Amino acid sequence: MAELEQMGKRAKAAARALAQAGPRKDRALLAAAEGLERAKDKILAANAEDLAAARAAGMSAPLLDRLALDEGRVAGMARGLRGVAAQEDPVGEVVSGSVRPNGLKIEKIRVPLGMVGIIYEARPNVTADAAAICLKAGSAVLLRGGKEAVRSNAAVADVLRAALKTAGLPEDCVQLVTDTSRASALAMMRMRGTLDVLIPRGGRGLIRSVTENARVPVIETGWGNCHIFVDASADIGMAAEIVFNAKTSRPSVCNAAETLLVHKDIAEKALPVLKARLDQKHVQLRGCERTRAILGDSVVPATEEDWATEYLDYILAVRVVDSLDEAMAHIARYSSGHSEAIVTRDYGNARRFAAGVDSAAVYVNASTRFTDGGEFGLGAEIGISTQKLHARGPMGVRELTTTKFVVTGDGQVR
Amino acid sequence: MAELEQMGKRAKAAARALAQAGPRKDRALLAAAEGLERAKDKILAANAEDLAAARAAGMSAPLLDRLALDEGRVAGMARGLRGVAAQEDPVGEVVSGSVRPNGLKIEKIRVPLGMVGIIYEARPNVTADAAAICLKAGSAVLLRGGKEAVRSNAAVADVLRAALKTAGLPEDCVQLVTDTSRASALAMMRMRGTLDVLIPRGGRGLIRSVTENARVPVIETGWGNCHIFVDASADIGMAAEIVFNAKTSRPSVCNAAETLLVHKDIAEKALPVLKARLDQKHVQLRGCERTRAILGDSVVPATEEDWATEYLDYILAVRVVDSLDEAMAHIARYSSGHSEAIVTRDYGNARRFAAGVDSAAVYVNASTRFTDGGEFGLGAEIGISTQKLHARGPMGVRELTTTKFVVTGDGQVR
Repeated sequence: MAELEQMGKRAKAAARALAQAGPRKDRALLAAAEGLERAKDKILAANAEDLAAARAAGMSAPLLDRLALDEGRVAGMARGLRGVAAQEDPVGEVVSGSVRPNGLKIEKIRVPLGMVGIIYEARPNVTADAAAICLKAGSAVLLRGGKEAVRSNAAVADVLRAALKTAGLPEDCVQLVTDTSRASALAMMRMRGTLDVLIPRGGRGLIRSVTENARVPVIETGWGNCHIFVDASADIGMAAEIVFNAKTSRPSVCNAAETLLVHKDIAEKALPVLKARLDQKHVQLRGCERTRAILGDSVVPATEEDWATEYLDYILAVRVVDSLDEAMAHIARYSSGHSEAIVTRDYGNARRFAAGVDSAAVYVNASTRFTDGGEFGLGAEIGISTQKLHARGPMGVRELTTTKFVVTGDGQVR
Repeated sequence: MAELEQMGKRAKAAARALAQAGPRKDRALLAAAEGLERAKDKILAANAEDLAAARAAGMSAPLLDRLALDEGRVAGMARGLRGVAAQEDPVGEVVSGSVRPNGLKIEKIRVPLGMVGIIYEARPNVTADAAAICLKAGSAVLLRGGKEAVRSNAAVADVLRAALKTAGLPEDCVQLVTDTSRASALAMMRMRGTLDVLIPRGGRGLIRSVTENARVPVIETGWGNCHIFVDASADIGMAAEIVFNAKTSRPSVCNAAETLLVHKDIAEKALPVLKARLDQKHVQLRGCERTRAILGDSVVPATEEDWATEYLDYILAVRVVDSLDEAMAHIARYSSGHSEAIVTRDYGNARRFAAGVDSAAVYVNASTRFTDGGEFGLGAEIGISTQKLHARGPMGVRELTTTKFVVTGDGQVR
């Protein structure tokens, strides 16, 4: 991949300029927001071509929804850029510091990572969102989107690069990898010494491929097999609203619920209420034997595979469990470590669930759909980390930085 | 590696007990400190066997120094354990939190990583130090030391496991991998889903092998190709003391200096003074042409390879450079990103060096030898990260933890 190597070299040079760019970063972001609004028609035309090709190729409705842009979503991208511009610049922050007894002053300073790579699938808004966060964090970025969105991504990237130029920054701070072959993704995974981190944003297959093949540090994001456990003491009305919201408000996203666990002592009363609510959006249920005994044959029998599946669709796996412990064991076994919720009125069970479930976000009496940088009050996010190193949960500008120690003295030796 | 798989399973079960062990962790650490003192003779006898075998195999003097234990070093291990016990427990810390306008309470809580793997070379004190830090951080640990230290490591690990039992914790929180074959190291690198992080501690070959082969998240540590730049305005006496200390106070460690860069405007005056100081410890110099023109033929001609070498010995590469920029470019090209120092009286150059050098620790007018958790006032360290993700520089107990979000509500939906 000679082309990718060249892009990497150009990005490295650009990153040096960006590391100490200060407020010029914000000027570039604001110019890009304006640019998106001005180029709206061009972007929507490119997106229409992408959508037509995807429809012809038989893409499913939820995935088409991810791919689609409209005036509202372009305006949303522009709003996102302005929001990132308005955030505080994390670069240069003195995270901590002290003077040692020998007079050495030790400061821990927040600095850019340097070079970020992002491999993502068919969501063109990621192009703007991810580039903005990397830019604000002071890092150059190589963006490799999915082939389905290649025209939309190119239209957005053109705007971003022009805006960088306007602000006096190198265009190559943002580069789009237009070769969307598997080979280009693999080549990015091997860019050791060039990429400081590679972030895959997408489904389970993409994440797996990256963690298997990468030789650069990776932050896993975005795969969400999220669970909701309805405890014996749950308020059934609340449970129905939370499950309905977590499953149906936007099924194509990673914080949507995929499996419902119901305590056996409440299953007979709760399951029909939950099903009635989910029926309003024609959610297909795939249940264990006990679920089917209660709800009848309209529930598809669940297989082992269902417990491990991220449907991203109007489908929900349902299992009746004997206890909180069994629910937690099921989650420990099948969860992707993204978001899990308990609905309960029992104080002790709420505490046990919050302490014992080892996921990025653990909820008591709320929908898993809140796992999001904006909803958490952290600003724009580049993804939701489901790994434990570096960052866990919604990752914003600050999570895309690192630190270094600056030690100043007057001749100290050890 | 069926054995390793079994160890991983036992460690996972042990980690669950450890995650909420609270003060029992400290009781185990204090019991282990006492145990080391009581088992001192046994440990030294095991170490004597390791040393005899290593000497017979022709191990170099600095490496024998790493391998050697004596009463002082055993006492040092015990002191280290007590020091870790005295540190604050990071687990459960509420790192940040807020209540959102919709009433959701969002807390970011510090939690254990879970399972840590450490692959290290011939320093038996790492067995005690690393286990203590993992234990305090609430994580189970698989320790795989070098084959040269296998008897010493086993003697130390026995003490640690007995202490865990005394404190009512599972012995399997600490397990020593006694198979020191390359296959066992490779198997650890593939323990995806079991190890949350793998930390290689050792020379460049080990680090490379791990980053090439690992399928689990890795934190690179310990390879240190550290530089000292003597600027045109340096105090030559200060420069001589800093270079002498950084090179000779303990050449076998990663924060020792390996390359000296000298500004051309001071080279003729400074180099003879620096050489005279280094001659006191018979340091071999390997110099560029300009260095040899000043210091004469006693300086070995440096090759390209010298600039990239971590000698871990009484050898120092020396290069005369035209400017601060050339020094920084040399560092950017050859450094391992560990520790670099400038000796200067120029305010602007001090600022530029501190801002522009992208290493874990950047020094102005002090020895690189201070890069150490204890010296930085951070407590015991498990290694010095030379990567940018998760932790950079000395890594202590806190750097071995992660966080999760706990979100509590009363029925919120999005």
